[in-house]
Amino acid sequence: MLIETIDDPDDARIAAYRDIRERDLTGRQGLFIAEGEVVLRTLLSDASLCRPRSVLIAANRVDGLRGLLETVPAGTPVFAVGQDVLDRIVGFPLHRGILALGEKPLARTLDAVLADLPEQAVVVAASEIGNHDNIGGLYRNAAAFGAAAVLTDDRCGDPFYRKSIRVSVGAVLRTPGAAAPSLEALVDALEAARFEVIALSPSAIEPLKGLKPGGRRALLLGSEGPGLPASVMARTRTVGIPMAGGFDSLNVSVTSALGLYQLTQPQA
Amino acid sequence: MLIETIDDPDDARIAAYRDIRERDLTGRQGLFIAEGEVVLRTLLSDASLCRPRSVLIAANRVDGLRGLLETVPAGTPVFAVGQDVLDRIVGFPLHRGILALGEKPLARTLDAVLADLPEQAVVVAASEIGNHDNIGGLYRNAAAFGAAAVLTDDRCGDPFYRKSIRVSVGAVLRTPGAAAPSLEALVDALEAARFEVIALSPSAIEPLKGLKPGGRRALLLGSEGPGLPASVMARTRTVGIPMAGGFDSLNVSVTSALGLYQLTQPQA
Repeated sequence: MLIETIDDPDDARIAAYRDIRERDLTGRQGLFIAEGEVVLRTLLSDASLCRPRSVLIAANRVDGLRGLLETVPAGTPVFAVGQDVLDRIVGFPLHRGILALGEKPLARTLDAVLADLPEQAVVVAASEIGNHDNIGGLYRNAAAFGAAAVLTDDRCGDPFYRKSIRVSVGAVLRTPGAAAPSLEALVDALEAARFEVIALSPSAIEPLKGLKPGGRRALLLGSEGPGLPASVMARTRTVGIPMAGGFDSLNVSVTSALGLYQLTQPQA
Repeated sequence: MLIETIDDPDDARIAAYRDIRERDLTGRQGLFIAEGEVVLRTLLSDASLCRPRSVLIAANRVDGLRGLLETVPAGTPVFAVGQDVLDRIVGFPLHRGILALGEKPLARTLDAVLADLPEQAVVVAASEIGNHDNIGGLYRNAAAFGAAAVLTDDRCGDPFYRKSIRVSVGAVLRTPGAAAPSLEALVDALEAARFEVIALSPSAIEPLKGLKPGGRRALLLGSEGPGLPASVMARTRTVGIPMAGGFDSLNVSVTSALGLYQLTQPQA
């Protein structure tokens, strides 16, 4: 492992890390920033679908993370900088002290992702989930319950946004995903691939609790506010989670975990 | 409803709202700040355990929220200010445009809270949950599944922190709570009140999925990192949620929802 020391925040070698908060808002073609030790461990693991392009680390973290740094592929540069230089590069105090620049997986069509899945598979399908914490939470739960993929429509946030990756505890980097041009196209593709689409909705009559694991199922989640459109609910099986008196509803990431739990855990 | 207009950010009548972000860090004896329409609606509802002391609103929100403002008790002042004055009072751009100062419920002992509960009751017991989003999430889930109380040990964050209340969607203001001097005291009190303490732990053998609703149960949750101490796990029933290959664990708020779901929803 060769570590290159950098003293100048304007060094061209670390240009991709500059002002990452502002760049988060504009997106970056094909690349993402991984933040913190846990996420980096996923990026460098065999389970990762992504490749690291470089690593940027506070010099005082190098000794503590030497084991992890030794798993960085040969030829991938590791840049060490002082904490003050690091903070100036990224534009805010970066307590986690380690970042990596990664390459997103090659984009695959929804049909291609679905075609690869086994006969027993649960996928998460999300519509209009803009909040980055929620997208990250969906991925974290999907990985925890062994969902085969997370599928999004055109109104979901980018899972490769830095905060989404962090909230997902790295799951975004290891769980196959695909984006559909619309919610309708997402449901069409799932049905064409013989997935039973199960929409979670507070207004549903059938309780989630009645479902049993098995087969090809897609758990469809809409935004917390308006929820899924009636036209989509009309063509899908719709299940709900009865709530205690008058309380509005659950967070969408929590709801995804409940659906995945019900669809993947065998009755004891 | 009488609305008092304020033009001076230093007006003594709104001193409690000044620089709320810094005050969040120091706490405030017996009072809290409620933020946003949804939380305020809970504070002003019959379900609330707390009383409003005043309301501070951006003048351009008054018409849209007139119905809500009419539920403010007589004698509780409503202060209207320009958005720019509001931002200067609170110390940052307050897009939600409405705040209230509330009085916490009178602190009750753990034993007193537990003594009031019926024979069929589920409570959430939390140890070392410092993160304000997670505390808020616990309350939101507790309210959604009709848990009778949320009990915390001495190492949990204050549920009445502004962000916790907001994440709870107001549930902190309507769900009974009590703080124990230690985790051991919390478990002691639960056992003395004939609650079965069910600890959720990734290392447990017994699956959560095997539990059925009924009786007095306490769902005990520890921090995401170290988890519950072995001494506590040894004296409680310990259940887990089997996770897919190698993935670490779920967020504690998500875990609480899964436990509550299992302990409150009848098998369909």
